Amino acid sequence: MVNYINIYSIEKAAKIKLDKGIYDFIFGGATDELTLERNRTALDAIQLTPRVLAGVGETDLSTTLLGIPLAFPMIGAPLAFQRLVDPEGEIAVAKSLHDNNLVYTSSTMSSISLEQIAEKSPGPKWFQLYIYKDRAITLELIQRAENAGYQGIMLTVDVPVMGKRERDYVNEFELPEHIFAANFIANSDERTSQNVRNRSAIKIFTDKQFEPNLNWNDVLWLKSKTSLPIILKGIMRDSDAVKAVEYGADAIVVSNHGGRQLDGVISSIEVLPKIARKIDKKIPVLFDSGIRRGTDILKALALGADCVLIGRPLLWGLSAAGELGVKKVLSILQEELIEAMMLCGYSSVIDLQNNKGLIANSFLNVETNSEFS
Amino acid sequence: MVNYINIYSIEKAAKIKLDKGIYDFIFGGATDELTLERNRTALDAIQLTPRVLAGVGETDLSTTLLGIPLAFPMIGAPLAFQRLVDPEGEIAVAKSLHDNNLVYTSSTMSSISLEQIAEKSPGPKWFQLYIYKDRAITLELIQRAENAGYQGIMLTVDVPVMGKRERDYVNEFELPEHIFAANFIANSDERTSQNVRNRSAIKIFTDKQFEPNLNWNDVLWLKSKTSLPIILKGIMRDSDAVKAVEYGADAIVVSNHGGRQLDGVISSIEVLPKIARKIDKKIPVLFDSGIRRGTDILKALALGADCVLIGRPLLWGLSAAGELGVKKVLSILQEELIEAMMLCGYSSVIDLQNNKGLIANSFLNVETNSEFS
Amino acid sequence: MVNYINIYSIEKAAKIKLDKGIYDFIFGGATDELTLERNRTALDAIQLTPRVLAGVGETDLSTTLLGIPLAFPMIGAPLAFQRLVDPEGEIAVAKSLHDNNLVYTSSTMSSISLEQIAEKSPGPKWFQLYIYKDRAITLELIQRAENAGYQGIMLTVDVPVMGKRERDYVNEFELPEHIFAANFIANSDERTSQNVRNRSAIKIFTDKQFEPNLNWNDVLWLKSKTSLPIILKGIMRDSDAVKAVEYGADAIVVSNHGGRQLDGVISSIEVLPKIARKIDKKIPVLFDSGIRRGTDILKALALGADCVLIGRPLLWGLSAAGELGVKKVLSILQEELIEAMMLCGYSSVIDLQNNKGLIANSFLNVETNSEFS
Amino acid sequence: MVNYINIYSIEKAAKIKLDKGIYDFIFGGATDELTLERNRTALDAIQLTPRVLAGVGETDLSTTLLGIPLAFPMIGAPLAFQRLVDPEGEIAVAKSLHDNNLVYTSSTMSSISLEQIAEKSPGPKWFQLYIYKDRAITLELIQRAENAGYQGIMLTVDVPVMGKRERDYVNEFELPEHIFAANFIANSDERTSQNVRNRSAIKIFTDKQFEPNLNWNDVLWLKSKTSLPIILKGIMRDSDAVKAVEYGADAIVVSNHGGRQLDGVISSIEVLPKIARKIDKKIPVLFDSGIRRGTDILKALALGADCVLIGRPLLWGLSAAGELGVKKVLSILQEELIEAMMLCGYSSVIDLQNNKGLIANSFLNVETNSEFS
Repeated sequence: MVNYINIYSIEKAAKIKLDKGIYDFIFGGATDELTLERNRTALDAIQLTPRVLAGVGETDLSTTLLGIPLAFPMIGAPLAFQRLVDPEGEIAVAKSLHDNNLVYTSSTMSSISLEQIAEKSPGPKWFQLYIYKDRAITLELIQRAENAGYQGIMLTVDVPVMGKRERDYVNEFELPEHIFAANFIANSDERTSQNVRNRSAIKIFTDKQFEPNLNWNDVLWLKSKTSLPIILKGIMRDSDAVKAVEYGADAIVVSNHGGRQLDGVISSIEVLPKIARKIDKKIPVLFDSGIRRGTDILKALALGADCVLIGRPLLWGLSAAGELGVKKVLSILQEELIEAMMLCGYSSVIDLQNNKGLIANSFLNVETNSEFS
Repeated sequence: MVNYINIYSIEKAAKIKLDKGIYDFIFGGATDELTLERNRTALDAIQLTPRVLAGVGETDLSTTLLGIPLAFPMIGAPLAFQRLVDPEGEIAVAKSLHDNNLVYTSSTMSSISLEQIAEKSPGPKWFQLYIYKDRAITLELIQRAENAGYQGIMLTVDVPVMGKRERDYVNEFELPEHIFAANFIANSDERTSQNVRNRSAIKIFTDKQFEPNLNWNDVLWLKSKTSLPIILKGIMRDSDAVKAVEYGADAIVVSNHGGRQLDGVISSIEVLPKIARKIDKKIPVLFDSGIRRGTDILKALALGADCVLIGRPLLWGLSAAGELGVKKVLSILQEELIEAMMLCGYSSVIDLQNNKGLIANSFLNVETNSEFS
Repeated sequence: MVNYINIYSIEKAAKIKLDKGIYDFIFGGATDELTLERNRTALDAIQLTPRVLAGVGETDLSTTLLGIPLAFPMIGAPLAFQRLVDPEGEIAVAKSLHDNNLVYTSSTMSSISLEQIAEKSPGPKWFQLYIYKDRAITLELIQRAENAGYQGIMLTVDVPVMGKRERDYVNEFELPEHIFAANFIANSDERTSQNVRNRSAIKIFTDKQFEPNLNWNDVLWLKSKTSLPIILKGIMRDSDAVKAVEYGADAIVVSNHGGRQLDGVISSIEVLPKIARKIDKKIPVLFDSGIRRGTDILKALALGADCVLIGRPLLWGLSAAGELGVKKVLSILQEELIEAMMLCGYSSVIDLQNNKGLIANSFLNVETNSEFS
Repeated sequence: MVNYINIYSIEKAAKIKLDKGIYDFIFGGATDELTLERNRTALDAIQLTPRVLAGVGETDLSTTLLGIPLAFPMIGAPLAFQRLVDPEGEIAVAKSLHDNNLVYTSSTMSSISLEQIAEKSPGPKWFQLYIYKDRAITLELIQRAENAGYQGIMLTVDVPVMGKRERDYVNEFELPEHIFAANFIANSDERTSQNVRNRSAIKIFTDKQFEPNLNWNDVLWLKSKTSLPIILKGIMRDSDAVKAVEYGADAIVVSNHGGRQLDGVISSIEVLPKIARKIDKKIPVLFDSGIRRGTDILKALALGADCVLIGRPLLWGLSAAGELGVKKVLSILQEELIEAMMLCGYSSVIDLQNNKGLIANSFLNVETNSEFS
């Protein structure tokens, strides 16, 4: 395998290998991709002031998330149709995360059924859930996830309607014949799986099947139906973070869906500090959207996150070199994070979270301007 | 018809089709086009923080403006010489707006007479007025608009002299033979209509005929001459907004004339919040200049507007595909607005106007720096 | 003559016509040209909020500066060796300004003697002075200026040593044979005039002849030697502006020498407001550096200037079309200023200076960050 | 020798001459090189407001640093393997600095032994030290430096692990056969010197040999082993600066290692003012990272530095023209600094350090946003 230097070189290799339609389907954001871009520029705008002579030759990145030990504070983000880029798909990604003692999150829209993934890669896993208008489908998914040994339900709350991803329109993107929503074949629901074929169909299906009226009472309903911890993914406002605690969520993911839902939404990292302060350690705060460097993870932790999600880079690794590629992505990020911690003078996740003065400033910082809040 | 994805793709189609001189006449701004550009960058710089689980599966965009029900909070901006880009001109644009239950605003400088437009498209219409040095011409226009069933007079207050649009100078732009100010043919005023032929002539005519000394007493005069509601277009300063209420305006349009009058003027969106607070719901506040996305409309409403005007995109639609093209422009913006509202968690115009915390910040925001105010 | 649209099109014409070495000698700034660029970006960053319905059909731009009536608030900046670009040189520029009822400022380093300029163009003129180590030379220059009818002495205070203009080094620029410091030929001082030939010679001459130890007592000395008003050019700090009043200066010019002296110096427009407030109308405040548009003049006046200087554009006009070209520069700026005033709703210089709220903001504004001051 | 105009033109000459791998090894920063770039943009963003008529025809740049007189406030930064670019290597650089009455700092990783450097260029010198896990190696280095007449120990504190310099990975950079860590040949430690050959080897060696657990007690240990003054290089946080004083450091260097250690670290100049205020003249504060112009030195001094370090430009000079090239670098910076001081109106280092109001602002300034501190 080529000795990839960083995540960007793996993405480059993936881009060369992948069909443009598939690359764009994975990479693209909503409409003008302003949020997609801001997720990166906001992370890059954060400035660090390392401390020295802190005696941190040894770093300990291990942490525990909802009872699950992690080698370092990162888990896999839910990503649809992973077989689009490699026949091993979800199984290769799950194995890579598990071999590295990290959590895999299986998408409702996986291209391999949740049971098969669990069977082939029995490590710690969460199941990402959309709530369907037809609550029977929803309940069946939850029960299947429980039966297959999934240890958490990550409820996506930012898709009352699917975002307008214009690259897919331009490319007239549709799923290849052999890729389908495998959870629904298992469910014998031909309509549900087969219809998700072309670009408009994906959006039409989503907008038709998913519950757009989702509200906080649905969180209570979900909690009444499962004993698994509930992680709410897609929180961007501090008042919603407070509600998440009130309604019994076990964790939240601060995320703008990687810029794929509504363009113009602020970057996740800019809202993280205020949300973390409001949550005040009551439940774990996860951070999603834009992580490409070890320093990005360090910045998120220093600004209040307990763990980060990694999404697209998993698929770049999978595209570039299958399971080995995914593992390379993980090892690069882990090594970069270790180095960043040593160079900043912090030896553990808690040490980092308790930092004073590591973050110098960010000229993009939303909190300096609360005129309209 | 090509399945246009967004307003920009329609503009692109229009640009390919149109003579450069005509495209530039429509697109261009004053001198260095700094204001033209800032209208867009300021809108893009506004960051949103959506709320989730708000149960907004159904959105209701309908609203009422000065007694006229609207399908969604957008009306047509006054645009001169619409036959420049399509023989159907003003009639096609008016029909498209009316078929979508929106208001058409007819320009004094229309290329089809106000009576013909009213006859062919009898939906709700306003008449845009310049006050002439010769008040008799002005009065006649008002009476004709009243007789033809126009329901409001939009007085343009930001053209004491026409802006310096240098693209027209470079292109030596002049109106084609068959395009003329049709309201004045009807008026039998040969001089008035025929002289508006070439670029310098347009400016010379405007600067010669229009009243440059326009002042607040002229608003009182205008009110004494018509019972139609008066909408003042071109307000950019909060003290002027306050005066508009004092002098009896029925609505105002916050507008910098799409960057076509004075370059260096701040973007409309940056002054909107302060003006809206000063107006404090006493009269409707309309917003103009730069709307190209559903999120732009959402931002304007969230910052205090009751309705927005859409200008150039109507002509891009008309250029690209006639009446169908204009309708496509309207449906794209309406769909994008619906999606943006759902994704932000707001179900109606009032819900959106009463928002707390939707607007995260804007680093271009004028209000953070009031050193010179 | 080509119908030039704006100052930039005249500069473009000049650039095509001129030898690169000469163009760069005129256009260039010190070292990295950061200040040169900031003079423009800072002006462009200032945002205007026009007022409407102000009844300003007629504008009156006339003003009086140190007793001299001006058609509009602009005078010519001192510029060396004007015959570099046209054989008519200083005389053509002086005539153009005088025909427009504006003041000409003659450079010590003119390529036509101060007496000849005065003879050929007898309108109101100031003489720009460097103080020489040899005070006898200095006194003789002052007396000659007085005898020739000059009405003011503009003392340049920002050249204790000449700036490092690297374009001249790269081009190995030297003055052509026929261009020389004509005031010193008249003075029969062969050394002084002939040595100023090549790039290093200009700097060597300047650094050798000019008084680098210039201090505030020299202003008192100068006042004791002439009854003409003294205008100090090159003030950038408010404390120096206060001193200028204390030491009896009759006016100051806020200027960074068009970015030609020290790179890294802030733009002139950013320091203008504070200086103007400190001066508090005790003496006139002139503004120099970067004026290219009528709106630039309007911005400077609105921020506290009584008058602006125009420099390089005079030479672009002279290069492009001789005396007619200079006049075109003046008429473009005057027309743009008139239009800008009408569109902002101000009818006179005093009206503009007393504005409230015309300047919305400037994100480059130095005054928002006084950490180090 | 070509008449180089500025540091950038010397760098350009060096870039043409050098093998890409070597150029990149010297020029490159860590990962995305954001910090490398910010070191420059932050310096350029600082705006000056000169004072005039200050009578500074004569400037005196001389200063004293830890008892050593300097011609002007600049010393050589420690740079590894200087023979990479010229056979004269460290000796040529040391001679150039000494001939200009400046201090040379010898790197632990020099390509000529510390004794040879001292013998060939007996001027004032400091020795840059890494602390080895094997303290015996460390002690031997200190004693050798003392014996050879070095007058200070500069302890590098920001390399618990070597930064990830991706250019070296891409280029598969390795040291040429004839370049090695000469201090360890002298030490007869074959392993230590020979292993430092290729890119991974350099990092592996460094990470294996250097003490990653370095802490404040090691400063006490070091002080107990030598009577030479200790200068701590790599301080970026004010609390660490305070500790440096507490633990008996004789001076500190504010430095982010030229952007070569951790990317995302703020620029050195942005943290300098706060650190200098905390140090409050108790010990000298040196500034490192990004100096390319005389104005950069002036800015650093005005913001609280007592002296600056110059690094990469020494190697550009050495590459371009050997010892003469290094001297040209020094003379350019000295001349630019003199000119900058004259043009700002300050006559000496102390005069400059006591300035009020010279620094207008910096929109990158970290101190305006202390949300997270």
